[in-house]
Amino acid sequence: MITYERKAYYHETDQMGVIHHSNYFRWLEEARVHFLDKIGLSYRYMEEIGIISPVASISAQYKKPVKFDDIVIIYIRVVKYTGIKLELEYEIRDKKTNDLMVFAESKHCFIKDNNIISLRKEYSDFDKKFLDYIENQDK
Amino acid sequence: MITYERKAYYHETDQMGVIHHSNYFRWLEEARVHFLDKIGLSYRYMEEIGIISPVASISAQYKKPVKFDDIVIIYIRVVKYTGIKLELEYEIRDKKTNDLMVFAESKHCFIKDNNIISLRKEYSDFDKKFLDYIENQDK
Amino acid sequence: MITYERKAYYHETDQMGVIHHSNYFRWLEEARVHFLDKIGLSYRYMEEIGIISPVASISAQYKKPVKFDDIVIIYIRVVKYTGIKLELEYEIRDKKTNDLMVFAESKHCFIKDNNIISLRKEYSDFDKKFLDYIENQDK
Amino acid sequence: MITYERKAYYHETDQMGVIHHSNYFRWLEEARVHFLDKIGLSYRYMEEIGIISPVASISAQYKKPVKFDDIVIIYIRVVKYTGIKLELEYEIRDKKTNDLMVFAESKHCFIKDNNIISLRKEYSDFDKKFLDYIENQDK
Repeated sequence: MITYERKAYYHETDQMGVIHHSNYFRWLEEARVHFLDKIGLSYRYMEEIGIISPVASISAQYKKPVKFDDIVIIYIRVVKYTGIKLELEYEIRDKKTNDLMVFAESKHCFIKDNNIISLRKEYSDFDKKFLDYIENQDK
Repeated sequence: MITYERKAYYHETDQMGVIHHSNYFRWLEEARVHFLDKIGLSYRYMEEIGIISPVASISAQYKKPVKFDDIVIIYIRVVKYTGIKLELEYEIRDKKTNDLMVFAESKHCFIKDNNIISLRKEYSDFDKKFLDYIENQDK
Repeated sequence: MITYERKAYYHETDQMGVIHHSNYFRWLEEARVHFLDKIGLSYRYMEEIGIISPVASISAQYKKPVKFDDIVIIYIRVVKYTGIKLELEYEIRDKKTNDLMVFAESKHCFIKDNNIISLRKEYSDFDKKFLDYIENQDK
Repeated sequence: MITYERKAYYHETDQMGVIHHSNYFRWLEEARVHFLDKIGLSYRYMEEIGIISPVASISAQYKKPVKFDDIVIIYIRVVKYTGIKLELEYEIRDKKTNDLMVFAESKHCFIKDNNIISLRKEYSDFDKKFLDYIENQDK
């Protein structure tokens, strides 16, 4: 499984003394970009050839607050992938204690020239990379 | 129904040319603070007397992208309120077109000295303000 | 003089219990966009016709911390304008006390198709709006 | 010289297609925290014992824009340190090309119980760490 490690920055805290809840969505995005890189799909390259992958919906359950200077590991799983739709699930865990801090889910599609596209039909090499990863992600 | 009006700032855009999806969670927080103010519950005052109201979970469905300089109106509804738990629902609508841009939901509790408290039992004046508002919110 | 009023949001605080110093630069940008609007130069429109006005340099002196829910007024002055270069100066003052919280300065140019342009030569109507404002800003 | 490496995140871009200028101030903060850690002064620990080190002033000159997914290296130099005042200077350089992207300066003091303190007088072990580093920073 692909993981993403991240330190919590001071500027991400709020006056409750913990990471502001909106910032976890930014960490999830970083984890996604990292995940795509690792399976061989650079998001920078995707955008350069005109494909964007916006967030259709996202949710988070906050279990424990992450604090400044804590290190977390984000575990990312593909829950569903059809070539058109992509659903991901994330666990943000404290690196030291392995405690689950935040559980999250997101849904995405792929858009080119303002239209939803099927990677399966139009970018079979990208599609293959997803399929290869999914086959092995739980091993 | 209490509403919150907000202009989309340049620094909230990303390179897709639209408001970054994480920023809507910040707008929702602003709308909540505004909502609490309007029903007579200053969040600043709540924190001063030691009560915080963290986000337990939150979700958003992105319908249409908001762009720089657009003005939105956020409609906020209390879906559930038990004195202990608070559930809110939001519609972020374009001010000009009334189009639904983002639909969101959040769950909250109230915490004092690291313990979940019941406003009903411990802060009946606060509780009354919620109940009064809820009775009238759909009129 | 054109002023911009702004409430400090919760998500802009950090664990020092005050507005994070980086956020003031975002407020200054909002004040600039507001300023341009007021003198008849919509920044949205400028970008639509291909002109951007990036920040060449910026600085801030932090006098007193702004806190959550405080309201500030930002006073913006054109210090220098040549048609090519624009220099601005800002005072962020507490609305209630009039205390100076932050003093800031920024320098800008205007760019089209990756080249620095002269509003004077190429957009004389824009140039005129700046000159008209400057003539009257201290009255 | 202590350096801090950082990848530019997608959520840090704006609709100009580059990193928003306010975000560099956050990177500088991360670099400072990293710098303090490296010389043996954990900022987390400093705050735990009641010492904060706010930004008194800060400035940046933007030379070239950093783009999403670029990696930068931040070089940090102590320009002045008196035990009471600390002045730092930063170069944000592109990792691949070594191009200078942003040059910045910041001034800080140390505060405990709302008073400016002298590390030299009150925390000589902290003071020594600064002095040791400064002696060697240009070697």
